[in-house]
This record gives sequence, C-alpha cells and structure tokens, in this order.
Amino acid sequence: MERRQFLQKAAIGTVAAVTAGGIVNAPAVHAQKKIKWKMVTTWPPKLPYLQDAAELLAKKVELMSGGLFKIKVFAGGELVPPLQTFDAVSKGTTVQAGSGVSYYQAGKAPAAQWFAAVPFGLNGAGMSAWYEFGGGLKLWEEMYAPFDVIPRPGGCTGPQMAGWFNKKIESVDDFKGLKMRIPGLGGKVMAKLGATVVLCPASEIFTNLERGVIDATEWIGPLHDKLMGFYKVAKYYYYPGWHEPGPFVEFVFNKTAYESLPLEYQAILDAACTQVNNWTTQGFNTGNGQALDELITQHKVTLMKLPDPVLADLKSHAKDAVFDIAAKDPMAKKVNESFERFKKIVGPWGEVSEKPYYNSLADKYKLKG
Amino acid sequence: MERRQFLQKAAIGTVAAVTAGGIVNAPAVHAQKKIKWKMVTTWPPKLPYLQDAAELLAKKVELMSGGLFKIKVFAGGELVPPLQTFDAVSKGTTVQAGSGVSYYQAGKAPAAQWFAAVPFGLNGAGMSAWYEFGGGLKLWEEMYAPFDVIPRPGGCTGPQMAGWFNKKIESVDDFKGLKMRIPGLGGKVMAKLGATVVLCPASEIFTNLERGVIDATEWIGPLHDKLMGFYKVAKYYYYPGWHEPGPFVEFVFNKTAYESLPLEYQAILDAACTQVNNWTTQGFNTGNGQALDELITQHKVTLMKLPDPVLADLKSHAKDAVFDIAAKDPMAKKVNESFERFKKIVGPWGEVSEKPYYNSLADKYKLKG
Repeated sequence: MERRQFLQKAAIGTVAAVTAGGIVNAPAVHAQKKIKWKMVTTWPPKLPYLQDAAELLAKKVELMSGGLFKIKVFAGGELVPPLQTFDAVSKGTTVQAGSGVSYYQAGKAPAAQWFAAVPFGLNGAGMSAWYEFGGGLKLWEEMYAPFDVIPRPGGCTGPQMAGWFNKKIESVDDFKGLKMRIPGLGGKVMAKLGATVVLCPASEIFTNLERGVIDATEWIGPLHDKLMGFYKVAKYYYYPGWHEPGPFVEFVFNKTAYESLPLEYQAILDAACTQVNNWTTQGFNTGNGQALDELITQHKVTLMKLPDPVLADLKSHAKDAVFDIAAKDPMAKKVNESFERFKKIVGPWGEVSEKPYYNSLADKYKLKG
Repeated sequence: MERRQFLQKAAIGTVAAVTAGGIVNAPAVHAQKKIKWKMVTTWPPKLPYLQDAAELLAKKVELMSGGLFKIKVFAGGELVPPLQTFDAVSKGTTVQAGSGVSYYQAGKAPAAQWFAAVPFGLNGAGMSAWYEFGGGLKLWEEMYAPFDVIPRPGGCTGPQMAGWFNKKIESVDDFKGLKMRIPGLGGKVMAKLGATVVLCPASEIFTNLERGVIDATEWIGPLHDKLMGFYKVAKYYYYPGWHEPGPFVEFVFNKTAYESLPLEYQAILDAACTQVNNWTTQGFNTGNGQALDELITQHKVTLMKLPDPVLADLKSHAKDAVFDIAAKDPMAKKVNESFERFKKIVGPWGEVSEKPYYNSLADKYKLKG
C-alpha cells in the first residue's frame, strides 16, 4: 500500500512528455521485487505440450516481469518424485509451483476428480466455461485451500482415446477378465464390468503390453500414444475416450507464496497460465491430428469405434461410480452438483451449435482405418 | 538495450536476502515507461463479451504493469465511427488499439475473411489451433503489416445461428426472393440462391424485420439475438450457422506503437489478449446456453434445424464463393491454402474425438423447440 501511494505521488509529480504515439516518456521509478521460484512437475523431461508447457510458463513470466520474476523448472524426478509434486508445492519450503493433474490428488480430496475429467462429463470447451462462468475454478480453489495450494487450469488434451486392445470389443462382456491399465474413475467402471484393472508407471506400460502382463491400455491420445510405440504391440486403437472426454492438466502454486507476490506478479502468473493453457490445448488438437494420420497411414493402425451399446453400458456404470464418490464426500457432492448444473446449460447449446458442426459442417474425411 | 544492461548490472550488484518462500526481498530499481493508449471499438457500449471484453483487456494490462500501462477504451462512435476503428488504428495518431472483426476489412484485404469466419470452415477450436500451430496468426500479421497494424485473436462467439425466419425453409428454393440481412460470404451464397441480400446497421434490423422491409435476418447467437428482441417479430429460429461456424473477433494494435513498447509491455499486452480471448469464448458458450433456454421456455421460440439437403446445397455454393475470392487475390489464395491444409489435420481428429462426444457422450437434452 505504501509503495503504491509513493508511486501515485511520484506520478503526479512527474512532468510528462506525451508523444503522438501516446507514450509518456518520463520513466517512473518502479521498485519491483526480484522473485525466484522453483517449479516441479509430474512429467518426464521433454514430454510434448506438458513438460515444455511448464517451461513456457516460466519463459512468459520472466518476459512479462522484465526478467525480475524467474521460475526454474524441474521435470518429474529431478527434484522430487513425480507424484510428490503436489505435496512439495503444498509444503512450499523449497518449491512454489507445480504441474500435474488434479485427479492425482483424489486420495486426499475425492472432489479432485471433477477438475480433471469425469467419465461422460464435460469436454474441454465445457470444462473451460465451467471454470470461468460456472464457479468451477472457485470450487477448485476452495478444495485446495486447506493444502495451502492455488490451482489454475493448465490445458486440455482434448477427448482421449479409449485405448489399445488386442481383441475386438463387441459387447461389455468382452471386458470380463481383460487385464487393462486404466486409472481413475474409468478403472472403477472397468472393474465393475469384470476387467482386472492394473496400474503401472508410464515407463512400464509398453513392456507389460508386449509381454502380456496386460491385455490392453489407455494412455492419452494419438500424439503421446504414438511416442509410446503402442502400435507395435496392439492391434486395435479404439475411440472415443468415454472415461476422459476433455481432461485438463493443472498448474498449482503454494498459496502463501502466491499471495505474498506483488499484485502485478500474481496477475502476470495468472495470465501466463492462460497463455500456456491455450498453447497446450491447441498443441494437442494439432499434434493429435498429425499423429492420427501417421498412425493410420504409416503404421497401419486399425482404428475402431466402441459400439453404441457398449458406450451406453459404460455410461450407466460411470453414472453409478460418480454417484458413489459424490455420496461419500461433502465437497465432492457440492462440486458434482455445480458440474451437473453446468452440463444442463452448455449441453443443449452444444446440440445446436457444435454437434451439427461436427456432423454436417465439418468436411468429412474418410477415415482410413 | 542499454536499459537492460543497466538492469543486469544493477541486479548483479544487489545483495539479496532469500526467504524460505523463495522471494528475494531487495528491490531492484526498475525504471519503466508510463504508457497511455486509446482503444476504439466497433461495438455499442455494454455489448456483452465484446465491448466489456475491450475494457477487461485494459484492466488486465494495467494490473500486470503495476498501473504504468493504461488503455482508455471508447465504444463505437464515442471517438470514431464504429467501422472506422481499423483505419484509426492503422493511422495511429490518436488511437493505438482497436476491437472489431477482420472481415470488416475484406474491402481493402480480401484475405481478411479467413481470419474471422469461412462458411463451412473451421470451428472455434480449429481456428485457435490454426492461428497458433498452422501459421494462421503469422499470415494474419503479414496481411495487416502494410496497414501498420498487428492483430491478435479476440475471442470466439461459437457457431452462430442460421437466423430468424417467418417461413419454414424446406429447400433452397425457399430462399428465392427472400429479403435477408446477411453480410459477408454468407450473403454472397444467399444471393447466388436467389435471395435479396439487404445490409443495414444493427440498430435498424429489428424495425426492418418488424415492418417487412426484410423477411429474415441472422445476427450472432442466442445471447445477443435475445437482447435484440428478434423473437418478438420472427417465428422460426434456425440452426446451424453454416456461414460462420466459429467466428473470431480481433484486437488490433498500431504496429509502430506496439513495437515501440518495452518488451515487457508487448508480452503483457499479448497475454492480456489471450486472457480476454478465453473469457469471451467461454462467456459466449455459457451465455448462449442460458439464453437458448430462455428463448425456448420463456419466449416460446420455435427452434428449427436447416434440412440436410439445404445444408448440402449451401455448402456447394459456399465452396464456389470461397474459391472465387481466393482466385482473384494472391494473399487470399495463400491464406486459403494454409486454411485448407489445416482443415485436413484437425478434421479427421475431430471425427474421432469431438464428434462422438457430441453424438453419444454428451447428455441428450430433449430440445424443447
């Protein structure tokens, strides 16, 4: 406050020379803090549109602050183990920022699931609108406040793929006995349908699939799935990703550290998050499009759509799984109510706007798979 | 450059006290320029998510710059007539920034159409990805450079509606002799189908429709159409908006003024544009959803879908209209090639990702119209 009053007085006392371009040349003495933060992530180094997104965030913040606010970024495992990212940020002793996915925190806060992905929930556009205009971001902040953490949407992968399989899925009976790597609520639904849900680190999925330790896996989408090489060891690539129709990653900041920033830097950090959110979302859209084509034309992947009756069964079970969690946790209940309310606002509009776009306005390309 | 070197030296000479939170408390003396800009828009005062978006941009920039970079915003007609916004920014003598739509510049740069909306072109998600990863923004900058203008995407209205009609559209023959207010390429297509295309300012559309000067009109989408009161004088509200599947508004800056900003302020201005772009896009998605429900339930509007054969005919004519423009102007040709190339990247991915989402994942709400 005192600094601001000083600045105002200084500004009043300045004799300004206004040019035609509207620039007042007299420099104001703007005493700004130098800040150095550390950011850790859950991502492997160089992971496209995820690890490099964290690095882009740091670059944007440094640029906007004229080099005064610097964030040093560490990939998963470089400073803390990947899945301890949130805890490190929550603690805030050496680390002030992180990048990951909110459903990693489902164990300590069941409501966390809703801010990343809900099976048959909102897609990316719906999630974005819910955060901003449906109270989603406020609820997300409320949920993380006890952990001394502030969240920001980090970008959307777009609808994911249903996964890689070595046998055709013709009814939900085909899931019985299937050993599949699928985390989160999607895994709960698959378990109810008789699948054996296997969880393993990203680095082990390929080998497990190759050796038959698992029969099937989901991962992200064409771009990242191609990098994992799953097409070498699985026959069928199924869509749509019913379990994650528009998952968002997150940036998290230590709340005490965030709130002790000058207001300018809080605003700069928020703006950089939105820039990176957009960059990541568009990067996934473009990269998935390019990789899908490569998978089909170069790697001869067989693209398959889950039959409608299978999707209907999955939807019914997903509804139960979501209901179960919301029934047990007051915060999850509150978040789910907000989420469902918002679906009723954007849902019918989607039927009138984007649905006909995808069905009759968008150019139809004959899928090669 | 000199200022930066000075800052670096100053930083090196500072004895810093690092706290646990990572904050270096010793203030750096950061001599920043005070900037005052004027921004004019093509929008009426208080127009939701458009005029207030320009005001939000100014607020964000001021906040991030610690009050040093101020933009005073004027609605259409307050400082210059609405459709002279671009020219005022291009001139740059009293005005440095503007907000409008690029197709208003189609008369002086035919390629401008592509950066706003192309009939049966990309939707909002596709446009965003094209700007960032398909070279779209670079081409947009190249197109405006001769006018000394720099563009930034300002936000997407979502797919528009086809418009308000007083008779049912059962085939393209129903367009013959129809007097319709529809600008741009959409109007060219309608004219080819025998409609009489009428152009009139926004303020006169309602009265013209009421008095039968026009038989039909398109405008934006449920939110803004509701505010215009068209439901009082037209029977049928048709979708989808084939002519504008994901139109973007634009921010424009005088290039000389932009480039004379300190790099921090250029970065801050860019980041604020992205924030407002997102805010506007999500605001339209939410506001259109709410207004659609009001129109149907409170104002008893009859919602109608253009029959598929009508859409197919419109698509064929739209292709010709787009081809005609691209054939006559080298820049339009170059932009169209980039646009079409990008459609082939995101198109097939949309078929696999968002199309099944809208068709089977989104909850089906029985449309009340």
